[in-house]
Amino acid sequence: MASVVMQLLGCDVAALNTVHFSNHTGYRQFKGTRATADEITALYEGLTQSNLLDFDVMLSGYAPSAAAVEAVGAIGMDLQRKAAKDPGSFFWILDPVMGDQGRLYVNDEVVPAYKNIIRYADLILPNQFEAEVLSGIKITSLATLADAITAIHATYNVPHVIITSVQIANLSDSPSPNTLTIIGSTTRSNGSPRLFRVDVPALDCYFSGTGDMFAALTVARFREAVFNADPALRTTQSWVSPDDVPATELPLAKSTVKVLASMHRVLEKTLEARDAELRAIIPDESEQLLSESERKKKEHLRESKAAEVRVVRHAQYLREPDVEFQASEWRAEDLPERFR
Amino acid sequence: MASVVMQLLGCDVAALNTVHFSNHTGYRQFKGTRATADEITALYEGLTQSNLLDFDVMLSGYAPSAAAVEAVGAIGMDLQRKAAKDPGSFFWILDPVMGDQGRLYVNDEVVPAYKNIIRYADLILPNQFEAEVLSGIKITSLATLADAITAIHATYNVPHVIITSVQIANLSDSPSPNTLTIIGSTTRSNGSPRLFRVDVPALDCYFSGTGDMFAALTVARFREAVFNADPALRTTQSWVSPDDVPATELPLAKSTVKVLASMHRVLEKTLEARDAELRAIIPDESEQLLSESERKKKEHLRESKAAEVRVVRHAQYLREPDVEFQASEWRAEDLPERFR
Repeated sequence: MASVVMQLLGCDVAALNTVHFSNHTGYRQFKGTRATADEITALYEGLTQSNLLDFDVMLSGYAPSAAAVEAVGAIGMDLQRKAAKDPGSFFWILDPVMGDQGRLYVNDEVVPAYKNIIRYADLILPNQFEAEVLSGIKITSLATLADAITAIHATYNVPHVIITSVQIANLSDSPSPNTLTIIGSTTRSNGSPRLFRVDVPALDCYFSGTGDMFAALTVARFREAVFNADPALRTTQSWVSPDDVPATELPLAKSTVKVLASMHRVLEKTLEARDAELRAIIPDESEQLLSESERKKKEHLRESKAAEVRVVRHAQYLREPDVEFQASEWRAEDLPERFR
Repeated sequence: MASVVMQLLGCDVAALNTVHFSNHTGYRQFKGTRATADEITALYEGLTQSNLLDFDVMLSGYAPSAAAVEAVGAIGMDLQRKAAKDPGSFFWILDPVMGDQGRLYVNDEVVPAYKNIIRYADLILPNQFEAEVLSGIKITSLATLADAITAIHATYNVPHVIITSVQIANLSDSPSPNTLTIIGSTTRSNGSPRLFRVDVPALDCYFSGTGDMFAALTVARFREAVFNADPALRTTQSWVSPDDVPATELPLAKSTVKVLASMHRVLEKTLEARDAELRAIIPDESEQLLSESERKKKEHLRESKAAEVRVVRHAQYLREPDVEFQASEWRAEDLPERFR
C-alpha cells in the first residue's frame, strides 16, 4: 500500500519490505516471511555501498520485532546523521505501529524500542492508543489529548505529530458520531503544540491499509506543502514553520487536508465496489454443508477481500482530490468547560 | 519495475517477490535475500486458503534457482487448471529469464526447469539468446529466426511468442544499425507462425529493468487489445485470434506497438535525465587518491544510478504513449534471398 501510493504520486521508492505476506492480516490467516534485523541491516548496507542513500524522505512503518524496530531506527539515525550539515535535506516520517483500540498487537519489547528511536524522527503518526502509550497520558478529553501531544513533543523532541484517528465522539459534542477526527501539531519554539483538527465523514467499513495509505500520502503532500511555503522552510531543520504561522496555515495542516480528501474519495469508491461485489455473490449450495464456524470464516474472507482498498483504479483521486476538507485551529480554551 | 508499471496502468497486483535485493544486479554488487521454492509455494498457499486466486493474468519473471522456477511453474499450472472450464479467463505470460548475449546467467538446471513449464504458458518473452536455447536453433538469419519461433510454437505448444530483442543488424539490411527489432507471433491453427516485426530507434545506453518493463506493459496492453477485439476472443483459449486475422491486426501486434511507444518515450526521458545528472557531478578531489580500479568502480556505480529508469515521473507516457510505431507483417519469402 505505502509503496504504490507514493509511486502513484510520482515518488521514486526504494522499498525495504519488513514482511512478505500472502495477504494482510485482517483476513486472520496468512503465510509468508518476516525480515530479521540482520536482513534489514544488510539491505541498507547494500544501498550504502553503492551510494544509493540520496533519500529526501524516509517512511518507516510496521516492523515485526523489537530488533527489527531497532534496525529500522539505526537506518533513520544514520540518514539523519548524514544530512546533519544540510538541514531540511532529509525528513523521517515514523509510524509507530504498536496497537489500536486499547490493545498492543506487538511484543511488549517493541514499545521501548520505539521510545528509543522516535527522538530521531521528524514526524510521527500514532493513532490514539499509540499516542497514549508514548505519552503515558490516558486520553479522556480534549484537554488530555492536548496534554498527550505536548508531552510527545517534549519527551521525544519530535516536532510534528499527527494523531491519525481520535474517538472524538467519546470526548466532546462533535458534529456527528459519524465523524472521524484527525489532530495534528507542529511545535512552536517554546515547545507548545500548534494544534489543528480536521473532521471527515466516517465510512461504515473496516479497511485494511489505511494507516499506510495516510502515511504514504503524507510523504508526498507534506513535502509538496513545504516546497510551496516560504522557501526558507526547505532548508530549516525538520521543516518547522516560524512561530507566527498559525496552526491552520501550517504545511502539515495543508498536507493533511489533501491527504484526507484523497483517502475519503478512494474509500468511498471502495465501499461502492465492495457493496456491488458482495451483492453479486451467488450463494453456493455446498456452503450449507459447512459448520457454522466454517461458514463464518468463509464470509469473513469474502468480506475482507471485497473491502480491499481500490487504490490503483482510483489513482486520479490521489493525484487530484476533488473534495475539500478544512483544518481548524484547536485550542483547549475554546472547548466546553467539561472538555478543557 | 514490473509491479509498479502494472499498477501505474491500473492493474491490482499481488506481487510474489522471488528476490529482495538492495539494488539491481547491474551495479555488480548488491545485498539481500532470495526466496526459496518453499517460501514461494507457501505464499501461494496463503492466497489459496483465503480464496485470493481470481487473477486475470499472471506474469512470471526471474526466479533464483531451478527449484524456484518449478515452484513458480506449479503456481501457473494450478491457475491454468482452475481456469480450464472457463477459457480465456486466465492468461500466463512467462519471461524465461536465463541469459543474454550468448551467455547463461543462471544455473544450468534452470534451462530444463523452464523447458518443462513453458508448455503451460500462453505467451513467452524470450530474448534472442533465450529463443535459441529453447528452440535449439542458432539464429543467424531471418529464416532461422522464423524457424526458431515455429519450433517454439510446436515444441512447447505455446501460442504467443515475442522475441524482445533481435540483433537484426547482423542478419539483414535493417533500416539502420541504431534500430532495435522486436519480433512477435501468434500461431495459426496449423501451427505455423504469424510473424510481425516492429522496429524502434535504439538508445545508446544500457538500462536495467527494461525486460520487466516490457513484460509488465504487455500484461496491461495485450489484455486491453484482446478486450477491444472481437468479443469472442475473450472467451477463446489463450486468446488466439482466428486464422484469417493477419499478423499486423493481431492483438499481440497492437499491444506490442503501444508497449514499445511507452518504453521508447520513458527511456528517452531517462537518457536526458541521466545525461543531466552525470553532467552535474562535481569531481571530488579525494577521488584522485583512489586506485584506478576503485575510481572505475565508483564511476560505474554513478553511471548505473544515473541510468535508473525514470518510470514513476513519466507515468503519463505509460498511460498515453505519444509516439507511433508500426507493426509490419514479416514473411521469409519477402526477404532478400540470402536471408531466407
